[in-house]
Amino acid sequence: MKKPVIGLMLGDVTGIGPEISAKLLASGITHSLANVVVIGDRRALDLGIRNAGVKLAYETVPSVEAIRWPTEKLPLLDLGNVDPAKFPQGVSSAESGKLTGDTLKHMIDLALAGKLDGICFAPLNKGAMHQGGWKFNDEHQMFAKLTEHSGFFGEMNVIKEFSTFRVTSHVALREAVNMVSSERIESAIRLADDTLRSTGIAQPRIGVAALNPHNGENGLFGDEEIRIIRPTVDKLRAAGVGCIGPISSDAIFIKARNGDFDGVVMMYHDQGQIATKLLGFSKGVTVTAGLKTVFTTPAHGTAYDIVGKGKADVGAMEHAFTIAAKMAASRIAARN
Amino acid sequence: MKKPVIGLMLGDVTGIGPEISAKLLASGITHSLANVVVIGDRRALDLGIRNAGVKLAYETVPSVEAIRWPTEKLPLLDLGNVDPAKFPQGVSSAESGKLTGDTLKHMIDLALAGKLDGICFAPLNKGAMHQGGWKFNDEHQMFAKLTEHSGFFGEMNVIKEFSTFRVTSHVALREAVNMVSSERIESAIRLADDTLRSTGIAQPRIGVAALNPHNGENGLFGDEEIRIIRPTVDKLRAAGVGCIGPISSDAIFIKARNGDFDGVVMMYHDQGQIATKLLGFSKGVTVTAGLKTVFTTPAHGTAYDIVGKGKADVGAMEHAFTIAAKMAASRIAARN
Repeated sequence: MKKPVIGLMLGDVTGIGPEISAKLLASGITHSLANVVVIGDRRALDLGIRNAGVKLAYETVPSVEAIRWPTEKLPLLDLGNVDPAKFPQGVSSAESGKLTGDTLKHMIDLALAGKLDGICFAPLNKGAMHQGGWKFNDEHQMFAKLTEHSGFFGEMNVIKEFSTFRVTSHVALREAVNMVSSERIESAIRLADDTLRSTGIAQPRIGVAALNPHNGENGLFGDEEIRIIRPTVDKLRAAGVGCIGPISSDAIFIKARNGDFDGVVMMYHDQGQIATKLLGFSKGVTVTAGLKTVFTTPAHGTAYDIVGKGKADVGAMEHAFTIAAKMAASRIAARN
Repeated sequence: MKKPVIGLMLGDVTGIGPEISAKLLASGITHSLANVVVIGDRRALDLGIRNAGVKLAYETVPSVEAIRWPTEKLPLLDLGNVDPAKFPQGVSSAESGKLTGDTLKHMIDLALAGKLDGICFAPLNKGAMHQGGWKFNDEHQMFAKLTEHSGFFGEMNVIKEFSTFRVTSHVALREAVNMVSSERIESAIRLADDTLRSTGIAQPRIGVAALNPHNGENGLFGDEEIRIIRPTVDKLRAAGVGCIGPISSDAIFIKARNGDFDGVVMMYHDQGQIATKLLGFSKGVTVTAGLKTVFTTPAHGTAYDIVGKGKADVGAMEHAFTIAAKMAASRIAARN
């Protein structure tokens, strides 16, 4: 199988992103999964290497297409745009947020030009990006806009036990209830099925959550389960998708934790987030699912409290990279 | 402190209720907390004693007022209404559900007449009760009706780490969103404060959940936090109640699990239930809070899969009894 080219982005330079990126790259596991190129500022990578206390042999390259894989040293496309001396570690900076967005845009343009098969990025400072001029509700909206995506896409959250997919996300709960439709549910289930397959699960088992308490108690506490959710799930199951539901909110995550499902389709943001955060999402991974380009990132943030101390755990970053490589490889295989 | 009189009800005879009641009573811990009287059928208690494999010295009494505390043997008010021979263990029965409701009604009448200070009941079969003619959405509604309660009351769920209280409960999510009002939030916070005090917490620390994702993201995803929840929390805190909020759904239960709160006030059913079920609510306790009479029960159900095998765990039943005794004692102290 052809190795995908994964662009690795160091995250906001004020956080632990450079450190965990250096740890990940020094571990050597990236090479077995992908052809990896770091895209960002050389000085930020050097900072990460120092913070991590690792050795890492890299060389700057003039462009991604100039790289001859496999390379002896790690290739770095030095954008020369982020001088760590200007941005103290552990301090939020709108200017650093702006530059973080610029680097991501640069990488997305490379991906759209076919030079990257996927993008894995270390933690962003979303508030700083917003202040710096990247005015999106979340980074998924930004990626959709920059990749000129139309149609359904969404945030996927990966924890050890299962992944979640969203019928609705960053909207008021009142609006989420109004947005629950057969079309959106079908899109979310299909996105879950496609995406889980691309991570290597041959026959994904997908649980679909109810909207109302007690699964609507046979229509006593709301009828969306009867009118909308069950018919949609039944239709897709008849079409060969391995989905079942609706299942009560307070039962589905117990089942998923116990191994019954690879994916859970949730109707509203907090339904899944309450569960995944309690189950240790800080060690999980966030994926932007459904776009032309694969995007993955660790679920945790910039961790200003431990930045620069060499203590940041690389586990979630490693997991994020692995998922990006698998999904990108699966897309290459599907194209060929 | 005067010991409260707690009526112990054996639960639906088809489930593990008689067994865990016998285990609880044989352990002897009830006597240190309360004057306990079993109310139900002698044959059901005998069944429980056999299933539990314990020895338990009891004697029937003609009425609760005839009991002279402390008693040498456990007093039993034999209603003679439930013949276990008619109701096979592990099989749901509408008739048994009807009789379960009858026994509870009998106990409530005793409580209203001042003869019981609290009621602790073993697991009911709610479906069977409904089929048997007790047509309520949940047992809390039934207890409110039978105690002729007007005003706010609610289900309280107790797990090891914290307790939850509900602004809304068994209604469609769409309706729950519409029901979130300053009045209901104030009532739920005050109920939490009063109830936690009555369980022995001198200064309850109460977290109040947000309604919308990311706590409404400063009004971007809904404004109930700004318009309704925060002003209500601020008003009550100014009045001396130890409440803070609103706090994001996906953060508040992490904080509560980590010991930051004694109680969490949730806006809708699944917000709390997703969290408490993942944290082991099957070992928890359900309390009907805010009525004239204290009602407590283990959170788990009739456990038909293990009924009659002597394997049922008494932990949650013991916890339910302890809470009933504490709350009832606190009310007696407040009256005197």
